[in-house]
Amino acid sequence: MGGTLVPPPLIYPTYNYIKIFTPTTSRRRLYSLRPVRSSAAVETLPKTDTALLEKSINTIRFLAIDAVEKANSGHPGLPMGCAPMGHILYDELMGYNPKNPYWFNRDRFVLSAGHGCMLQYALLHLAGYDSIKEEDLKGFRQWGSKTPGHPENFETPGVEVTTGPLGQGIANAVGLALAEKHLAARFNKPDSEIVDHYTYVILGDGCQMEGIANEVCSLAGHWGLGKLIAFYDDNHISIDGDTEIAFTESVDTRFEGLGWHVIWVKNGNTGYDEIRAAIKEAKTVKDKPTLIKVTTTIGYGSPNKANSYSVHGSALGAKEVDATRNNLGWPYEPFHVPEDVKKHWSRHVPEGAALEAEWNAKFAEYEKKYKEEASELKSIMSGELPAGWEKALPTYTPESPADATRNLSQQCLNALAKVLPGFLGGSADLASSNMTLLKMFGDFQKNTPEERNLRFGVREHGMGAICNGIAHHTPGLIPYCATFFVFTDYMRAAIRISALSEAGVIYVMTHDSIGLGEDGPTHQPIEHLASFRAMPNILMLRPADGNETAGAYKVAILNSSGKSYPNFQELPLKEWKRVVTLYQIILRAADELRKEGKAVRLVSFISWELFDEQSNAYKESVLPEAVTARVSIEAGTTFGWEKIVGTKGKAIGIDRFGASAPAGKIYKEFGITAEAVVAAAKALC
Amino acid sequence: MGGTLVPPPLIYPTYNYIKIFTPTTSRRRLYSLRPVRSSAAVETLPKTDTALLEKSINTIRFLAIDAVEKANSGHPGLPMGCAPMGHILYDELMGYNPKNPYWFNRDRFVLSAGHGCMLQYALLHLAGYDSIKEEDLKGFRQWGSKTPGHPENFETPGVEVTTGPLGQGIANAVGLALAEKHLAARFNKPDSEIVDHYTYVILGDGCQMEGIANEVCSLAGHWGLGKLIAFYDDNHISIDGDTEIAFTESVDTRFEGLGWHVIWVKNGNTGYDEIRAAIKEAKTVKDKPTLIKVTTTIGYGSPNKANSYSVHGSALGAKEVDATRNNLGWPYEPFHVPEDVKKHWSRHVPEGAALEAEWNAKFAEYEKKYKEEASELKSIMSGELPAGWEKALPTYTPESPADATRNLSQQCLNALAKVLPGFLGGSADLASSNMTLLKMFGDFQKNTPEERNLRFGVREHGMGAICNGIAHHTPGLIPYCATFFVFTDYMRAAIRISALSEAGVIYVMTHDSIGLGEDGPTHQPIEHLASFRAMPNILMLRPADGNETAGAYKVAILNSSGKSYPNFQELPLKEWKRVVTLYQIILRAADELRKEGKAVRLVSFISWELFDEQSNAYKESVLPEAVTARVSIEAGTTFGWEKIVGTKGKAIGIDRFGASAPAGKIYKEFGITAEAVVAAAKALC
Repeated sequence: MGGTLVPPPLIYPTYNYIKIFTPTTSRRRLYSLRPVRSSAAVETLPKTDTALLEKSINTIRFLAIDAVEKANSGHPGLPMGCAPMGHILYDELMGYNPKNPYWFNRDRFVLSAGHGCMLQYALLHLAGYDSIKEEDLKGFRQWGSKTPGHPENFETPGVEVTTGPLGQGIANAVGLALAEKHLAARFNKPDSEIVDHYTYVILGDGCQMEGIANEVCSLAGHWGLGKLIAFYDDNHISIDGDTEIAFTESVDTRFEGLGWHVIWVKNGNTGYDEIRAAIKEAKTVKDKPTLIKVTTTIGYGSPNKANSYSVHGSALGAKEVDATRNNLGWPYEPFHVPEDVKKHWSRHVPEGAALEAEWNAKFAEYEKKYKEEASELKSIMSGELPAGWEKALPTYTPESPADATRNLSQQCLNALAKVLPGFLGGSADLASSNMTLLKMFGDFQKNTPEERNLRFGVREHGMGAICNGIAHHTPGLIPYCATFFVFTDYMRAAIRISALSEAGVIYVMTHDSIGLGEDGPTHQPIEHLASFRAMPNILMLRPADGNETAGAYKVAILNSSGKSYPNFQELPLKEWKRVVTLYQIILRAADELRKEGKAVRLVSFISWELFDEQSNAYKESVLPEAVTARVSIEAGTTFGWEKIVGTKGKAIGIDRFGASAPAGKIYKEFGITAEAVVAAAKALC
Repeated sequence: MGGTLVPPPLIYPTYNYIKIFTPTTSRRRLYSLRPVRSSAAVETLPKTDTALLEKSINTIRFLAIDAVEKANSGHPGLPMGCAPMGHILYDELMGYNPKNPYWFNRDRFVLSAGHGCMLQYALLHLAGYDSIKEEDLKGFRQWGSKTPGHPENFETPGVEVTTGPLGQGIANAVGLALAEKHLAARFNKPDSEIVDHYTYVILGDGCQMEGIANEVCSLAGHWGLGKLIAFYDDNHISIDGDTEIAFTESVDTRFEGLGWHVIWVKNGNTGYDEIRAAIKEAKTVKDKPTLIKVTTTIGYGSPNKANSYSVHGSALGAKEVDATRNNLGWPYEPFHVPEDVKKHWSRHVPEGAALEAEWNAKFAEYEKKYKEEASELKSIMSGELPAGWEKALPTYTPESPADATRNLSQQCLNALAKVLPGFLGGSADLASSNMTLLKMFGDFQKNTPEERNLRFGVREHGMGAICNGIAHHTPGLIPYCATFFVFTDYMRAAIRISALSEAGVIYVMTHDSIGLGEDGPTHQPIEHLASFRAMPNILMLRPADGNETAGAYKVAILNSSGKSYPNFQELPLKEWKRVVTLYQIILRAADELRKEGKAVRLVSFISWELFDEQSNAYKESVLPEAVTARVSIEAGTTFGWEKIVGTKGKAIGIDRFGASAPAGKIYKEFGITAEAVVAAAKALC
């Protein structure tokens, strides 16, 4: 084996019971207060007549049809069937400001059936959002457009969250509604409902079948999220055909069991007043979320493809587009918005500006009366971190008592909750194991929504996706969530959306690897670290002692807030004696090698991603290229470690599932020992 | 850059729209027919008197208490609360043969609340299973014992499936009940119900909260699995305390909505006749699964800890064990089984042998009358593959028309279904995209359960776990399941159990990477290949053309059946021109380099795991150590590729999320091009 000119480093990752990770580089837009403007600009328009209403609805349908046709790719069926409820939502119901998609008190809309995104793009276009111009509709699903194949909040202002993977959107909507209820409870006053909006969501049969939807709807019922109104597009068609082949449950009955108010609109195609009445009824129910089951025809208007799976996920084709134009009496060119429709929708820009202006005036009043609350709410709305917040994080010295990092983590969480007004979170029924309770707060519950400990029950997937919704509600809300690291397998789809959509959720994942001991291989993560190191936009942090834990939280909070974080510093090696298991192994091994006259360097690999971002000079100072005698040790798969130890190095790890036994015994049996490190190091130099 | 003595290979993985993977090396026990034995050995025992019944139930409780106490780790609460239903199931109700845990027609039992495994270990011990002797109880949760911290089928004969991660067990039970219904429909005759057993499952509040449970219970209701009887241990306690904090839905109403028959046993602690009556009623309902909600007291009998979370997951402690002994009037030493209890249970060994013998006699009759069916059923029971089965797989020549591997995959699936009587499967509402329909069969439905196409709806997680149940029902059942590769994120927890429990499920995962094009980053897997390469016990196979696809299925079937598979052969390079995208890129790059006089070797990396298993000589012949100028290209993360290309090589891949645009455009923008390969290769040599 090649000799070395400089001392062989032993490389090992920081290790213990906590992984903290957070999607990188939030691009979330910051809210800024605008000057108060008069609401005089709003005209009171006459109630839309039915002919114009239907023309507007057909405009939505044909914008979707035309965009999918031009892209020769996409899902026309849902927009055609849901255009009526879409119209009523965006034209008659929702409060929003097209020119400031991030206005704090807007109603939120989520298209959980994200494949039908042309519905939302058409609506944003008609409403006057700058993000969706005619050329964006024409660029549907093309490189660099604002109109990707599924709704992406980071591409398209006006889109609240990233949906497409089914069930995620309804979960995000629960998170948005939770955030509203929480902030309203904290900041509203008898004389000023400064936080007051609804969350609307459209979900389809596919969302309903996904387990995550049941998880979060159970929680929404439990929490009594009365301002969450979900439209269930009951069209009886999924990709493989009629839902009869796999979905014959009574959704209504199930939702009644979940504690929802349920309304059935039998004619979602043309029953406009039925839809309106349902929403009106939903708003009268304050203590329960409402499910409005809207029976629609997928691809409504297409004479030969409506009500069939063929209209779900592909372009109608020129012939059927013509037939549909004939059938619905639509004489216009592709992408044409008739003038009267355009004129009708044009009021939303001034109305939206007025809405925001009114609210700003209200907030100015509020600020005068409730200075402290207003300041806190402003901090949450803007996402600006309070000055000096990081000083709240604990610091430790070599004299500090040794402790498990999950306990150290709890000290950090509690310290942060004191200084970050938008910091809240919880665990999937493992708070007492994950050590994630905020001691100064009670539980967020139906009747105590001002509190900040979230109790998710055993619903990991729903938990992650709800946190995505909370994070995307308002820049200053920083949610964290927790479970055993192995159960990230249950919530991986939500974590991926966190990463992709730059939600900045902080995942506090405890109980790593064979250290879990007696619970056995079903509970011992082996491949999980590697699997997240491989995922884009994730900062995986593995602190091992108090200061590393505090540092990890500092990086996570900065990153969650879209701030850059500091570079690595040389680590205070002397402190490492206070930590456990793997550290003890590596320190013993180093002592042993040094006794034999070997020069040894220990490197703690807290984060591969952060290391990658450092300067070449720093990297060379830590891992000199000339030193090829490298040994890594990690209580997990060796997959990927070749990158660090190189072709001539040795990675010690676990490339099999774990076992049920006391932790120390498994370490020994699996060869995660000081002896193994010493032997590997000696073999290399 | 180091020069090379031999031609620089270009390394790239086989690539296209299909990933097939399967857990490695099944250790599933094979069924063997036993000689017919007389049932005269069965004594008719008098009905248990209540005193003896309660003594037996307390025996179960104290075996659990004592084992957890000795291990100082584990979950005593559930066994203490569920001992009555456990007793009734194993002592009064279920048909099984303790001396042959793999007897085909046994009733199946699944403890979905796997943390309560001492309940099952105690029952298996009392019933006379050889796997759980007294020393195994004393070795609870210790290295090498048959009594790991959660039930593991691969460790403990008598345990049907591997549970612990919540919700998996109820899903497995649905798979077991599906398998029974399917086989019964195919093989039963008016004069002989040769397949006829129940599937029982105990699930707790935690399982009920998990989304996967709702997915599979919706399917169980849809399929009308009348012989599935689930006991819901309604004890109102989870780890974080009372279920009131996160779980207040009406489970009864939800299950009615799911199409289940629901019964409530209000006194699960001492209402023995109530439990019996509920089961009797459940058996009369033939067209629906039954949920028996059994209200129990967690930790029943413990005077100070019952009905609290403190009894859920840790030892009672010596003092409370004494108090419980006093409270329940239990004067015995730890691990003691009173003689009258022992005597009472002792009948199960002869009774079980008689049951199997009776069934064997019945089967012998059946075989005489229905030779062909009997032979097919025997093949399914034994797991022996029919001679020459692999000849059914298609072969291709360079003249065969080019096709997407998902279409080639469908040819293989259909070929296999003709020769493998236990081959069945389906997709999560993407059959028409995954190309997984078996054309000669109809859909497995409530009234056509003899068919083999499974329609899972949009329920990926449930699908994987149901397939685990099917696979563990009987060695010759080989289930496959399918969705888009990216949605393995939804089902990763089930796939991990496939791998750990050696289920041999075949996952047919289509639509890889940016090739998905317009659907965008939510639908484009980037990190997924790496994440499964990192998972133990998974064979990840990436065929690229017809012969590679057929070869991948051959390996998967052999592996699923616990057979060894052949070593790699040199691949027929000339055929690669028939495949698409990445292959065209690499072939163009190779042509380019060869034109410039470079010697180039192309290596198709179908499977990292299989390559690792080859001889050093073979590996050296493919990747000579002296050749350090190695370029890999894969439309996914480069994470892990250092292992193959070495420190001096270059990995071309995608280390960010994808984008929404036509596939060709994204390939170009992301630099997955022939030009990039050529440039990388030139830079290296």
